[in-house]
Amino acid sequence: MLPNNATTDTRLRIIDAARTLMFASSYTEVGVAAICDQAGVRKGSFYHFFPSKKDLTLAVLEAHFADAKTQLLDQAFAADIPPLDRLTRLAEMAYRFQAQLQQDTGHVLGCPFGNLATELSTQEETIRAAIVAIMGRFEAELRDTLAAAQALGQLEGADIGATAKAMLAYFEGVMLMAKASNDAEVVRRLLPSMTAIRVPQVSE
Amino acid sequence: MLPNNATTDTRLRIIDAARTLMFASSYTEVGVAAICDQAGVRKGSFYHFFPSKKDLTLAVLEAHFADAKTQLLDQAFAADIPPLDRLTRLAEMAYRFQAQLQQDTGHVLGCPFGNLATELSTQEETIRAAIVAIMGRFEAELRDTLAAAQALGQLEGADIGATAKAMLAYFEGVMLMAKASNDAEVVRRLLPSMTAIRVPQVSE
Repeated sequence: MLPNNATTDTRLRIIDAARTLMFASSYTEVGVAAICDQAGVRKGSFYHFFPSKKDLTLAVLEAHFADAKTQLLDQAFAADIPPLDRLTRLAEMAYRFQAQLQQDTGHVLGCPFGNLATELSTQEETIRAAIVAIMGRFEAELRDTLAAAQALGQLEGADIGATAKAMLAYFEGVMLMAKASNDAEVVRRLLPSMTAIRVPQVSE
Repeated sequence: MLPNNATTDTRLRIIDAARTLMFASSYTEVGVAAICDQAGVRKGSFYHFFPSKKDLTLAVLEAHFADAKTQLLDQAFAADIPPLDRLTRLAEMAYRFQAQLQQDTGHVLGCPFGNLATELSTQEETIRAAIVAIMGRFEAELRDTLAAAQALGQLEGADIGATAKAMLAYFEGVMLMAKASNDAEVVRRLLPSMTAIRVPQVSE
């Protein structure tokens, strides 16, 4: 029997290896053998923790979201910042993150959730549902921010729920274009315009 | 020796099979064997036409773009439509296309260029460059449209080039979110707000 902390460590090493490899390439490209190699664990150990690569990917998504929450969302969507300034801060932080990835790996990697969504949505319903749930958390922060702005008399006539969805779509699209262009400057130049997006209320 | 029209037909059958399979799942998921099965050709015949799956994918991208040009861009960006109305038409047509895909296949498939961009940009430089070139064609149509609008006194203060890039990013993001949500209604509700996007000119 391994002591509990070694068990936890092995599990985390597998998640961390999968996360790094999949973010750098794709879900399908990365096999269990490569994950085990990178994590320094045997295949038997892998399957002890994760029945399948799909199960591991759900844990990878959770790990990405835990970091996105503490390192991006909690800081950008801080209640002491004027609502629309939170979006500007989000844009700045997302730029710095992609610029760092480009510097470290030679590639802009985009959004781990958006990447897996385009790759797997038609193939892996469980993963698609998990991504939608995570995006819903991001969308809720945007919606709360827009509601706070509207309470201050901003965003008149906008459908707050639909505008939050539209801003998230723009965020994902900018990440996609930055990855396609392999240029973090795309994020710096385009993402602040997230604040211009409005979806008008549907008239009765 | 096959007559030329049979040769052409075999090549097109391979492209068509690869295009359908990759659009429905992903580049990496679809192997040469599956493409040959779907096209009804032997592997030797495949490699006669395409040295590798990567070469085939470049032809798949061209085929997608040829259709996107005649079925979407040429119709939406028609010179006899007022400039900003072209964007509204583009949004309507993109919605109808995704709704049809959802009806036919059970899935919103999103944008074939955006899908391959997120999956392959860090891995296949030739494919990434081909996608960037195609997106540049789309972006040029948007830029011409915005220039025409600006000549009519609209879009004052907007950086036309950057706004065209931002609108394309939004288009891609909406396709991504519609695919993630597996719901073409996302396109119908969100994409018309493309017209609200503005990237201001950078002040000197």
